[in-house]
Amino acid sequence: MRGYRKPTVSIIGASGYSGAELTGILMRHPSVKLEKLYAHSQAGKNVSDLYPALNNSMTYAPFDGSMDSDICFLALPHGQALELVPALRDAGKMVIDLSGDFRIKNPAEHLEYYKNRKPDGAWMTYAMPELFYDRIAASRAVSNPGCYATSIILGLAPLLCRPMDTFTVAAVNCTAISGISGAGRSGKTELSYAEMNDNVRAYKVGLHQHTPEIMQALGSSVSSPGFDFMFTPMIAPLTRGIYTVLNVRFEDNAPDCEHVTGHFRDFYASAPFVRMRDRVPEVRDVTYTNFCDINIAGAGNGKDLVIVTAIDNLVKGAAGQAVQNMNIMLGYDQALGIA
Amino acid sequence: MRGYRKPTVSIIGASGYSGAELTGILMRHPSVKLEKLYAHSQAGKNVSDLYPALNNSMTYAPFDGSMDSDICFLALPHGQALELVPALRDAGKMVIDLSGDFRIKNPAEHLEYYKNRKPDGAWMTYAMPELFYDRIAASRAVSNPGCYATSIILGLAPLLCRPMDTFTVAAVNCTAISGISGAGRSGKTELSYAEMNDNVRAYKVGLHQHTPEIMQALGSSVSSPGFDFMFTPMIAPLTRGIYTVLNVRFEDNAPDCEHVTGHFRDFYASAPFVRMRDRVPEVRDVTYTNFCDINIAGAGNGKDLVIVTAIDNLVKGAAGQAVQNMNIMLGYDQALGIA
Amino acid sequence: MRGYRKPTVSIIGASGYSGAELTGILMRHPSVKLEKLYAHSQAGKNVSDLYPALNNSMTYAPFDGSMDSDICFLALPHGQALELVPALRDAGKMVIDLSGDFRIKNPAEHLEYYKNRKPDGAWMTYAMPELFYDRIAASRAVSNPGCYATSIILGLAPLLCRPMDTFTVAAVNCTAISGISGAGRSGKTELSYAEMNDNVRAYKVGLHQHTPEIMQALGSSVSSPGFDFMFTPMIAPLTRGIYTVLNVRFEDNAPDCEHVTGHFRDFYASAPFVRMRDRVPEVRDVTYTNFCDINIAGAGNGKDLVIVTAIDNLVKGAAGQAVQNMNIMLGYDQALGIA
Amino acid sequence: MRGYRKPTVSIIGASGYSGAELTGILMRHPSVKLEKLYAHSQAGKNVSDLYPALNNSMTYAPFDGSMDSDICFLALPHGQALELVPALRDAGKMVIDLSGDFRIKNPAEHLEYYKNRKPDGAWMTYAMPELFYDRIAASRAVSNPGCYATSIILGLAPLLCRPMDTFTVAAVNCTAISGISGAGRSGKTELSYAEMNDNVRAYKVGLHQHTPEIMQALGSSVSSPGFDFMFTPMIAPLTRGIYTVLNVRFEDNAPDCEHVTGHFRDFYASAPFVRMRDRVPEVRDVTYTNFCDINIAGAGNGKDLVIVTAIDNLVKGAAGQAVQNMNIMLGYDQALGIA
Repeated sequence: MRGYRKPTVSIIGASGYSGAELTGILMRHPSVKLEKLYAHSQAGKNVSDLYPALNNSMTYAPFDGSMDSDICFLALPHGQALELVPALRDAGKMVIDLSGDFRIKNPAEHLEYYKNRKPDGAWMTYAMPELFYDRIAASRAVSNPGCYATSIILGLAPLLCRPMDTFTVAAVNCTAISGISGAGRSGKTELSYAEMNDNVRAYKVGLHQHTPEIMQALGSSVSSPGFDFMFTPMIAPLTRGIYTVLNVRFEDNAPDCEHVTGHFRDFYASAPFVRMRDRVPEVRDVTYTNFCDINIAGAGNGKDLVIVTAIDNLVKGAAGQAVQNMNIMLGYDQALGIA
Repeated sequence: MRGYRKPTVSIIGASGYSGAELTGILMRHPSVKLEKLYAHSQAGKNVSDLYPALNNSMTYAPFDGSMDSDICFLALPHGQALELVPALRDAGKMVIDLSGDFRIKNPAEHLEYYKNRKPDGAWMTYAMPELFYDRIAASRAVSNPGCYATSIILGLAPLLCRPMDTFTVAAVNCTAISGISGAGRSGKTELSYAEMNDNVRAYKVGLHQHTPEIMQALGSSVSSPGFDFMFTPMIAPLTRGIYTVLNVRFEDNAPDCEHVTGHFRDFYASAPFVRMRDRVPEVRDVTYTNFCDINIAGAGNGKDLVIVTAIDNLVKGAAGQAVQNMNIMLGYDQALGIA
Repeated sequence: MRGYRKPTVSIIGASGYSGAELTGILMRHPSVKLEKLYAHSQAGKNVSDLYPALNNSMTYAPFDGSMDSDICFLALPHGQALELVPALRDAGKMVIDLSGDFRIKNPAEHLEYYKNRKPDGAWMTYAMPELFYDRIAASRAVSNPGCYATSIILGLAPLLCRPMDTFTVAAVNCTAISGISGAGRSGKTELSYAEMNDNVRAYKVGLHQHTPEIMQALGSSVSSPGFDFMFTPMIAPLTRGIYTVLNVRFEDNAPDCEHVTGHFRDFYASAPFVRMRDRVPEVRDVTYTNFCDINIAGAGNGKDLVIVTAIDNLVKGAAGQAVQNMNIMLGYDQALGIA
Repeated sequence: MRGYRKPTVSIIGASGYSGAELTGILMRHPSVKLEKLYAHSQAGKNVSDLYPALNNSMTYAPFDGSMDSDICFLALPHGQALELVPALRDAGKMVIDLSGDFRIKNPAEHLEYYKNRKPDGAWMTYAMPELFYDRIAASRAVSNPGCYATSIILGLAPLLCRPMDTFTVAAVNCTAISGISGAGRSGKTELSYAEMNDNVRAYKVGLHQHTPEIMQALGSSVSSPGFDFMFTPMIAPLTRGIYTVLNVRFEDNAPDCEHVTGHFRDFYASAPFVRMRDRVPEVRDVTYTNFCDINIAGAGNGKDLVIVTAIDNLVKGAAGQAVQNMNIMLGYDQALGIA
């Protein structure tokens, strides 16, 4: 293809777990060129110092504000992208932000859940490909969904965004187990091996910052939810994965489980990374993949359905989905270089 | 104490994980004498062959029907105690059965959940000390609660068995994570290290044999429940522990969280093994102990409470509780030899 | 490339862990076509039933003796390839056998270590690419090295197969830790999660079937070894990986560590999967890769060197190395489809 | 026992893992009274905040130099006991120090391995009960052995401290795997769950501070060792335990394995916590116990013996052994309150 130059890509915040996962996917991606890796605290180190399995000899550089690449991934702690993204966008860069900074439209909700104030309009396309493909394709800058949110939204969207017949969801009770990499590359005592081996711990009980993101994506909101929503996240002794159990209560009787499964299959007919499963998924079914596996089971009481979803928090919950979004924005096959 | 002879104890089914845990507690118990260990498939082996950490040189014998000990623990797979228990009882033995065979009063429910038919009247005192202390004290043969059931019942009993004021529980959504020892000492491929490391798996979604036991203990029933109850069990990569999240929905507004915590403290005022906690418990807080730790948190929506409980499935969920029951039946301090 | 047909490949014994790893690599390999998966006990099941992460919808078939593919991988338990391989070779197939059946030249040694008798001449090219590249390239049927053997041979070959100057190895003391997948997809109680979590266990102390294979590859033999060799394998609670510590004692003083490292670098100059490391490797540095990482450190005593190697037992220790060998036999770049 | 007052005990450095293990043992000890827990960084917190499983409501206090208790355990980081111990000893306290500060007699060796200078004479009885019972019984202040050292010394002492007949040990090659609690209660990134799960890492290759301690205890020394000694420590994904493989090379032929086992049994005839095992021990055989399990196997070559030992690093490797020493110093049964 004469004259064609592959788009170039950089990652800001490349040394964390999501950044490393992005590095691995992008260095093998057939149709972009990974150009620069920016990382503040690890600047000067080689990728292979931190992640020898990637076998990548690039060096982390401090980000000084100038960006040569066409496309820019940001995998920074929450709060740090708020100023960077507008500058990059103004400089004509394509931007995919993996933080929570631009996920929530409503500034009051953002303030409440993320504890930092952000300017009005600091919102970008919420880049859940299975729900907002066209918007993503039309965007130059997008906000990549959170890992918990991905596992929950994909398990509920067909019921809530394209309601079935006369069935109405009354309440959703959700518990989700995350692998410990979800807490980032960290030296906190409570995340040390000696503390987390043989342990399980719930956290942020009664309040989790992903809730408004979930409600918003499902066409609802925290302040006036269309259904009752409870969410309890937990960490357990595994490195990767999010395992989510959604107890869905309907207004009257629950619809037939096969029927709902069919509805989900239709809804996700063109989604290459959602798999409707005949049996309950396990975390290892999706580890190191971009799949979201979903199973729907009836409950003996006739009133509830139990929807179980599984993803890899670093792939579909972060880097894989981010590259999927990049593919869509570039007009590529959305699975290119991921599957 | 001249003339006093310590009661003697035997364990039938001593070579499994619950049996080994019982062995460890009973061999150190100050006021009973562990006399015989019966185990079918491991007969002839020494305790130290299977469990060197116990440092016990007793030999497993096949059970031939004759029982010399005063007290008999049965830690057999479900179904195998049905015939043994009546014979032991008729022989005047004190019996504590750890299986599910005698937990459910209603034979139809037992048949549905355990898939084996049992004679009418095959029921024994449901030995949850925090609820039925007096009945246990008056019994010669009791049925020890299941591990999941223990973690759930203790988290709900104060709300359901001694209802508060005008608040009524409408629904309980429960997910619980069990350590893998809960599946017993086993050679199933799906429980192998290579399959369960870095994995989580739900099972019996929509139907679990502990449900009727839970409803019955809470004064309700599967067939006509006083509240909606959903339960999804999971196994995760830890050896011991049950971690249970109970989302409790109230008819109207949820009662105040502090108020409910106070109600629980009152309810468990004389229960030495229930600890009301100020923060969310972790599994490691209770591992190798007979404690059940409970925390109650409010939810942002004002309608739900989130109750989290943690136990060690082999101690409070099996052997520890069984010895606690023995102590009660013998008129000892219920914590003797356990704490 | 008009008229060109990719070589076709089948796997016999495809449902075990090595077979699944082969499936994953070969289904993505750019220059062969994975055609058939044979598996006895799992016949009729779909790959996705056992390994959903592979996202492969092929069905396991029982092997009936007829083979259409050009290339045939055998990933069977030891003993089962002895009759299959000659038949496949006679039928003109290219064969890569992952079992131990054809690794040892000396039938008496084979009998002693593998406990089965094999015909004279039942030996094939020992396919360690870093040592025997040319022989592999000239072979139609090869025997893939064992996982422990790979990690040990690569750590010793430069010293023993291309001796340095006047230095002579007197003794090698080796301990190696294997991930539990090395024991195969199994339902043995001693490999269950509840037994192996928080555990370490040595086995075959004083005698391991990989010893003759190692000695033979290093140009020595069990019966008349050129140096003393001790090997103790252990399993520890990890899924994948072999971590090997080699204490090498020299006749006189140990050579300088930097000097030896340079010698290794020369020896492995054209080996794309061996990485000489400046710091001690960790298992996670090589997990899910075909790399063998090696570090050499001096000892305070001036007489020993400590050589540490790390591989992924299922990749460089099995499936990755097997595909590397296939690439060499087909005249491809040896890293094609693996890196 | 009229007039009798139990000796009182305090722990300085009570909030780390060894301190917590000491707390657990001492609070249940029948013949001492645990009086005070000192901890600098955790001062003001309750034991139950950090270690709820201990069910202890004592509060950590900062140590201000005044000590009321009769007996004092120090479980501080290396270096911090150097000044405290002499002061406590001068105040007439019985002292058991768990740090490395007083283990090595030779100040030059101490400086080299611990990197801090200590005054001449800063040495205390090396309190390995199986070797130096009488000296411990006669001491008022002792130095508790290191965890690695314990597992190694117990596996070698019968050969080296009471040599057999004409057999002479020529070389010992040792590798040992430690549980991660051995690194202390820590927030280092490299000890986080996400880094250590599925990982193994050797460290201090070629040089470990326990080496001089080991040589000294075995009647040898680093500077003029009676035999060659190589030691490589590793951490693996388990919380507790040290698993040690000792390849022992003899000058001529190795003695018979049964014969050596008998010699070990004699040597340890009065040691209640050493168990000679007929099969290779596993870590879980000794977890949460004060046992050191030892197995001796012959090697095919007739020149080596393989000695495998297993201990719990926090019990026999730290707190359990420390209490064993206290018992000896007080004239109690050495196993009192530990077994």
